[in-house]
Amino acid sequence: MVEKVVLEKKVLSENDKLAAAIRTDLKARKIAALNLVSSPGSGKTSLVEKTIQALGGEINIAIVAGDVQTENDANRIIKAGGKLVRPIITGGACHLDARMITQALAALDLSGVQLLIIENVGNLVCPASYDLGEDMKVVIMSTTEGDDKPLKYPAMYRRSSVVVINKIDLLGTSDFDLPRAKENALKINGDLKIFETSCRDGRGLTQWNDWLRQFVAAAR
Amino acid sequence: MVEKVVLEKKVLSENDKLAAAIRTDLKARKIAALNLVSSPGSGKTSLVEKTIQALGGEINIAIVAGDVQTENDANRIIKAGGKLVRPIITGGACHLDARMITQALAALDLSGVQLLIIENVGNLVCPASYDLGEDMKVVIMSTTEGDDKPLKYPAMYRRSSVVVINKIDLLGTSDFDLPRAKENALKINGDLKIFETSCRDGRGLTQWNDWLRQFVAAAR
Repeated sequence: MVEKVVLEKKVLSENDKLAAAIRTDLKARKIAALNLVSSPGSGKTSLVEKTIQALGGEINIAIVAGDVQTENDANRIIKAGGKLVRPIITGGACHLDARMITQALAALDLSGVQLLIIENVGNLVCPASYDLGEDMKVVIMSTTEGDDKPLKYPAMYRRSSVVVINKIDLLGTSDFDLPRAKENALKINGDLKIFETSCRDGRGLTQWNDWLRQFVAAAR
Repeated sequence: MVEKVVLEKKVLSENDKLAAAIRTDLKARKIAALNLVSSPGSGKTSLVEKTIQALGGEINIAIVAGDVQTENDANRIIKAGGKLVRPIITGGACHLDARMITQALAALDLSGVQLLIIENVGNLVCPASYDLGEDMKVVIMSTTEGDDKPLKYPAMYRRSSVVVINKIDLLGTSDFDLPRAKENALKINGDLKIFETSCRDGRGLTQWNDWLRQFVAAAR
């Protein structure tokens, strides 16, 4: 498999160059950028919806929503009030890459935008390897998917700066142990900032929104 | 990306050859084989645990449990009574491939085995492309992960023969709509056989176990 490894390195290094160009462009525009990653169904789109509803009036937010198939997520975000939303259908690819982001951003009017949220494909493995030019990756973990996920998918937790533990309204309906989940996440990456949220009953979203305000302000 | 596509085709065709050899070997041994695929945290390991507990006394079952990192799943399955269990740590790879299965099977004593269950890496995208020599793929969907997943990850549902909708004890705690989930799955693949289960309260497991008995009997 040597040939495959070499080619992967080449693909990743091309991706890194494009990602660096995106990062430079976003910095020049003073746009703070997040790359949301997670398993399918952990609540990435719900978090984006709630964020748009809470902060859409005070922060100019652009969204790029990636999916293997369908524009369902992008449509949900538009319905929640998203004004600058661009879907990416990867057509089978298991992650977004910097080329897709370059094209998506070219199709958006970024003047005045303060925050870019990229919603990646639901996959805890492959998106970890692809820099999209973001300031940081935010990994969403849901309480219904098991507290050992950081140990089983360590690369994603190592390369993320923030964990959002979502669906805390469902704590107690499974064996998910919140302190153990946090301990597992911090075992992989001691620098992780952790939020606990429920997009269903709103718990923890105030803290998330406050942090986002600071994150956006720091980029200005 | 032409170079990459060509190489992927080569890798997949090598995989197909190895998978065909596994299939021939399993058929000769009259072992029925399932490849369990799903998002991380949908309940693959829980379903294997429950299956071992219910059928371990009457069917000789071998398990290959794949994970990106950790042997947690294999250890859970052994604790549940699994006697022939082989973990595979992919070390970063986002799917199991036929080469890994060939090696894992070589390390197991398959004499007298009637059923092989392969638990794939938690990933709704990449494992769809890799034949492991199984008779069929079983995709597990959980009620906490959204009823539109078949539409968003169509390849996996197209290439599976069975869907297990798990965590039905949590119906009503989210917007998950069971009839819509089934409709979406059948829209992608009208031949899918659908089970509804809860590994927590046991609902639907009798039907699953009965079907497994028939599946194993058909291979003899």
